[in-house]
Amino acid sequence: MENNTMKYIRDPRLTDRVVTAKDAASWIKDGMTLGLSGFTRAGDAKAVPTALIERAKKESLKVNVYTGASLGSDIDKLMAEAGMIHKRMPFQADSTMRKKINQGQMLFVDQHLSHMAEAIRADVLCPIDFAIVEAVAIDENGMIIPTTSVGNSSIFVEKSKHVIVEINTAQPIELEGLHDIYEAGMQGKRDPILLKNVHDRIGTIGIPVDSEKIIGIVFTHQLDSASTIVPPDEETQIMANHLIDFLKREVKAGRLTNQLAPLQSGIGSVANAVLHGLIDSEFTDLEVYSEVLQDAVFDLIDAGKVRFASCCSITLSDEKMKHVYANLEKYKERLILRPQEISNHPEIIRRLGLISINTALEVDIYGNANSTHVRGTHMMNGIGGSGDFARNARLAIFVTKSIAKNGDISSIVPFVSHVDHTEHDVDVIVTEQGYADLRGLAPIERAPLIIQNCVHPSYREQLLEYFEEARHKGGQTPHVLEKAFSWHINYEKNGTMRQHVNQI
Amino acid sequence: MENNTMKYIRDPRLTDRVVTAKDAASWIKDGMTLGLSGFTRAGDAKAVPTALIERAKKESLKVNVYTGASLGSDIDKLMAEAGMIHKRMPFQADSTMRKKINQGQMLFVDQHLSHMAEAIRADVLCPIDFAIVEAVAIDENGMIIPTTSVGNSSIFVEKSKHVIVEINTAQPIELEGLHDIYEAGMQGKRDPILLKNVHDRIGTIGIPVDSEKIIGIVFTHQLDSASTIVPPDEETQIMANHLIDFLKREVKAGRLTNQLAPLQSGIGSVANAVLHGLIDSEFTDLEVYSEVLQDAVFDLIDAGKVRFASCCSITLSDEKMKHVYANLEKYKERLILRPQEISNHPEIIRRLGLISINTALEVDIYGNANSTHVRGTHMMNGIGGSGDFARNARLAIFVTKSIAKNGDISSIVPFVSHVDHTEHDVDVIVTEQGYADLRGLAPIERAPLIIQNCVHPSYREQLLEYFEEARHKGGQTPHVLEKAFSWHINYEKNGTMRQHVNQI
Repeated sequence: MENNTMKYIRDPRLTDRVVTAKDAASWIKDGMTLGLSGFTRAGDAKAVPTALIERAKKESLKVNVYTGASLGSDIDKLMAEAGMIHKRMPFQADSTMRKKINQGQMLFVDQHLSHMAEAIRADVLCPIDFAIVEAVAIDENGMIIPTTSVGNSSIFVEKSKHVIVEINTAQPIELEGLHDIYEAGMQGKRDPILLKNVHDRIGTIGIPVDSEKIIGIVFTHQLDSASTIVPPDEETQIMANHLIDFLKREVKAGRLTNQLAPLQSGIGSVANAVLHGLIDSEFTDLEVYSEVLQDAVFDLIDAGKVRFASCCSITLSDEKMKHVYANLEKYKERLILRPQEISNHPEIIRRLGLISINTALEVDIYGNANSTHVRGTHMMNGIGGSGDFARNARLAIFVTKSIAKNGDISSIVPFVSHVDHTEHDVDVIVTEQGYADLRGLAPIERAPLIIQNCVHPSYREQLLEYFEEARHKGGQTPHVLEKAFSWHINYEKNGTMRQHVNQI
Repeated sequence: MENNTMKYIRDPRLTDRVVTAKDAASWIKDGMTLGLSGFTRAGDAKAVPTALIERAKKESLKVNVYTGASLGSDIDKLMAEAGMIHKRMPFQADSTMRKKINQGQMLFVDQHLSHMAEAIRADVLCPIDFAIVEAVAIDENGMIIPTTSVGNSSIFVEKSKHVIVEINTAQPIELEGLHDIYEAGMQGKRDPILLKNVHDRIGTIGIPVDSEKIIGIVFTHQLDSASTIVPPDEETQIMANHLIDFLKREVKAGRLTNQLAPLQSGIGSVANAVLHGLIDSEFTDLEVYSEVLQDAVFDLIDAGKVRFASCCSITLSDEKMKHVYANLEKYKERLILRPQEISNHPEIIRRLGLISINTALEVDIYGNANSTHVRGTHMMNGIGGSGDFARNARLAIFVTKSIAKNGDISSIVPFVSHVDHTEHDVDVIVTEQGYADLRGLAPIERAPLIIQNCVHPSYREQLLEYFEEARHKGGQTPHVLEKAFSWHINYEKNGTMRQHVNQI
């Protein structure tokens, strides 16, 4: 342990702060607000939350939990089961937590991921009592060196009353040097963010912190939870091919080169698979400026397609994690990990002109997208960074399979039951049927194109019927309000969005 | 005329380009795309479009018309009447044009105002054949000095094949020196925009142009159309007082000082009146970073409340215009006119931390806002810059009177019939009933607050009933999809959103 302490806690002022997770958890009081490291399972605080869950099983304890995004290690699940969360923000992706949220047993604030740090910095949210952040080490200058994600850790550390550091010795120490921590400063007094290229470094390799604030350091040894993404399949490859067709057309039109523009890709199997599909394309020297790097980006690096990737989190499958960790020195020169405020910052997204690829739950005939709510009411995961990117990107592309539930759900509907991205922010829709390029089109031009190119054949006629009836009533964005949600209602009542199902 | 030429066209290479409006209009061919100066009636090209309308009355002629925003001088109205527009973007505000759009007789693309320049620069839209821009002069270096708006004029000039300049001698020549023209450059290759303060100058006082592109210069003498805003009334003063109460609470909480933060205020009577209401507040040394300056800003300057204002357009009532023009030298040191891409740029909005005040047509119980579509289908004016500002501002405030049409419409509904601003982007809602601060609240916390604080008493119970029924069905964002649009449908059928109206 002594050796460990000196290897991992290099600031001599802090070596006396080592405590057990249980001790650290005991400091947390009912009603407090916690800021936990962790973004899409990566780099989450593990030991102290787990000890806190044990406490919550035996006593009445409710806390607010702020994070980067979703946590791993079943922390979100176990916290939800223990009933210990009053309010959770800004993102989660756990099925048990989702259930509790939708039953109204805990509060969830679904927020643009780049906005969380601003809200905390401006003291808009509850003050953070404890920042609990995972680290590979605390360096000679007392800086906290994060692990596989940065997320909101730096703003949590800056604004919290106390800091608990979890030094996770299972995380590769080679991660040190990979991070670039930048504090934007107060609005109205801040400087331009001088990041002009994906690979630019603008900050420090660790999180600066007043050493007095670190009141506990806990040693842990536990890998991140592996991602559960499904490998690319035939359908996702077809979607990738449509995307590639679209991008080739952009190159041909002179709007892009074969190097494209920095790519952002959302979390999840479909976005990962679509990105993976670029592996056999003619595009080269690609750059990634994204929030999460999933397996596909490392495959693209291995294939010599991606030359540099910037992110705020690395979330890998079990197998890919082993491979990446074994070759970290090789990947290191091609990677930077930043705070999510910077990976998702409108200033940078707009300046670099990203190509943004995110998954939609459903889209409508005019191009509005729902990323979050099943049948308009029940939360899936959250908007995440999709809004940060789609609003400010050069190209906001949304991908979705055209049908779900064996064809009983059409992912393209008359009117999305919840709007996360308005028609103003959706440039291209891609399904396995094809793509619709909506740029510069009025709503009445968009609908026929989406119906023709993206809708599953089994719903095409039904959707055309809706559009024609709506057109008859007129308007810039024709609708039959009485029938706008009839597809969702039909599904709820009859288990299918298909009309005339009862007559068959 | 010779004197005029030398006074207004100071670049000797261009003095031979003077033509009549009719001649200039004769160069425009069927199917072409025009980029016209003009933003909310200010600084619009007047003579050539008018001559073109005359042509269109006699021959078959259809063109695409791109602008900064809405035009004055009835140009939009007359173009619509002449049936000469194929596609119009990104904003209009004329009742005749609105009718044609909603009848499907012309296409309208409703776009974030800051996105237009990006789309043109990236060659996403139809190439612009003629930029037709109003100027007070062409200076010694051949730069075009705009008049009362910059809008998209600089990008139109840069990207168009040909340029026609309308020198309007009715516009005060003292406007020269007021503009700050900045070209962002291609995405991926551009520098940070080094604007840190509202008063910072980063560009040139005129629009640089290849002199060969200017193929015609037309002299005109016609003031801008005066704005038609309604003066503040008792109800708007009450709304302003609620806003002031909210802002005072922010100051008390230490989140703002009495200088507040740079203010943005949308176009129209309500936003103007609410801004005007700050005149008797304790806030001082205010700054404005907005797209349009309306009368209220000049009243606030006169009252010593506003020390500097940046915009892309100045749109005044008849009386205020006379006053401002007579005192332009005095106002000049407190004003800058920028391209709309810069006045509405996410990079700047986020950096400065604007307080953004825009008008909504309707909002719903979860804080989604509709700025554009009457009953979800019929276009009013367009989203304008409201999305540019609301997404990136420090505080996104939406104001609306709680009822319309003598109380037969509630501006707060179960589900907005069109979403321009999602719950993620709406911080505060203000009506004459009060305000709801939605920051950090989950949807089920938002609804009771909005209903209690903002809804008109005559709709409060009816809306609570909806919310309670929805709550019973559960979900993060509870809804009864069967009834989500029932208020709008009821209005369409029975002329009122009030339930039980037939039973009374």
